[in-house]
Amino acid sequence: MVRLLHFPLDPFSRRIRMTLSEMGIACELLEERPWEAREDFIALNPAATLPVLIDEDGTVCAGVEAAGAHLDETRAGQHLSLWGTGPAQRAEVRRMVAWFDGKFHHEVTSPLLMEKIVKRFVPAAQGGGSPNMNRVRSAIAALKDHLGYIDHLTSHHNLLAGNDITIADLAAACHLSVADYTGDIVWDGVPDAKAWYQRIKSRPSFRPLLADHVRGITPSANYAELDF
Amino acid sequence: MVRLLHFPLDPFSRRIRMTLSEMGIACELLEERPWEAREDFIALNPAATLPVLIDEDGTVCAGVEAAGAHLDETRAGQHLSLWGTGPAQRAEVRRMVAWFDGKFHHEVTSPLLMEKIVKRFVPAAQGGGSPNMNRVRSAIAALKDHLGYIDHLTSHHNLLAGNDITIADLAAACHLSVADYTGDIVWDGVPDAKAWYQRIKSRPSFRPLLADHVRGITPSANYAELDF
Repeated sequence: MVRLLHFPLDPFSRRIRMTLSEMGIACELLEERPWEAREDFIALNPAATLPVLIDEDGTVCAGVEAAGAHLDETRAGQHLSLWGTGPAQRAEVRRMVAWFDGKFHHEVTSPLLMEKIVKRFVPAAQGGGSPNMNRVRSAIAALKDHLGYIDHLTSHHNLLAGNDITIADLAAACHLSVADYTGDIVWDGVPDAKAWYQRIKSRPSFRPLLADHVRGITPSANYAELDF
Repeated sequence: MVRLLHFPLDPFSRRIRMTLSEMGIACELLEERPWEAREDFIALNPAATLPVLIDEDGTVCAGVEAAGAHLDETRAGQHLSLWGTGPAQRAEVRRMVAWFDGKFHHEVTSPLLMEKIVKRFVPAAQGGGSPNMNRVRSAIAALKDHLGYIDHLTSHHNLLAGNDITIADLAAACHLSVADYTGDIVWDGVPDAKAWYQRIKSRPSFRPLLADHVRGITPSANYAELDF
């Protein structure tokens, strides 16, 4: 069986879990806390990034790009490609994924995850402790802007890159789901973005993410609600 | 003809220029300065990242991932794939590319490029001006560490991911070439890394990069030397 080293609230781990589920591939989840720098984990991926996918034949795919491309290249023959059909749509899907993994992650997901979640687990000597509320406030302000962009994109289609689900939807929803867990999303004024997130949230591939609980950190009240 | 919006010292633009050349694809280069936020550029790529590849059929590929994957998917039938042969090598190549584009870029290329190059072109009100020498010193210290890693990788093979050239070599060399232009590489103590960089530097696909000059910023003395 495919194995996946993941952390429940890591947006990149979440995307590969959703990808596997959308492609109908069963997988064994192994929780990893990259900041603990476990020796066997670092041996698999010296960059210490998540997720790490280990395929049935032992192929190790370190990082979301390698894991996703590997699944598309080795399994897409059996499934509709989540990366889009045809060069133009594939280019558009990748542009969006790069936007969410670059700008959105840097400005929103990464600071929220670090300040509100990871700092609780990391010893003070390694930078753990209370959240830096200035960073949290900046992240929430950026999130508000970016929700407007998602609202704009989803006012034209049911989904981000057309009417079929793609990796762009998975990437966006997984990043947003972290801010949803920490209770930092305000849905007022972005009805198309909200309707889009409801559509993604109701997919069977998203359900397991809604059951994730990180010890000691309760998700926001509406986190697991499909009608929020 | 393929067109490429690029900036001469952007490591991601450089990689796609090398990729096109290695694949034997002619291209028209159009210099872009992303910080100027030119309207037609932002319309093509709202994230304002480089490069942007415009294929002959009009397909727009924004960002290095989209551009590279597009070339591999639409042209690799005619060429040996630079992304490696077989799932295991492709996963390893992508792991390395993610390491250079993530960690190396964040710690070395991005601060050197911003502090030493881009700040000269950007108005003071937008953050231009003198380089922050603390950031430059941190980048040089990180570069020294990472050269040791490249030395380690290249002590086993001629090239980073085996004996054939891959996108991992192009990614690494293009990031390093920025630090080479700014004169911040010290080759003492890393003979295998140096021999590897000499091999890449002598490839025809690298030559045009050696002729790049950014107005007002002279490259280091050895920048264009194949025997340095």
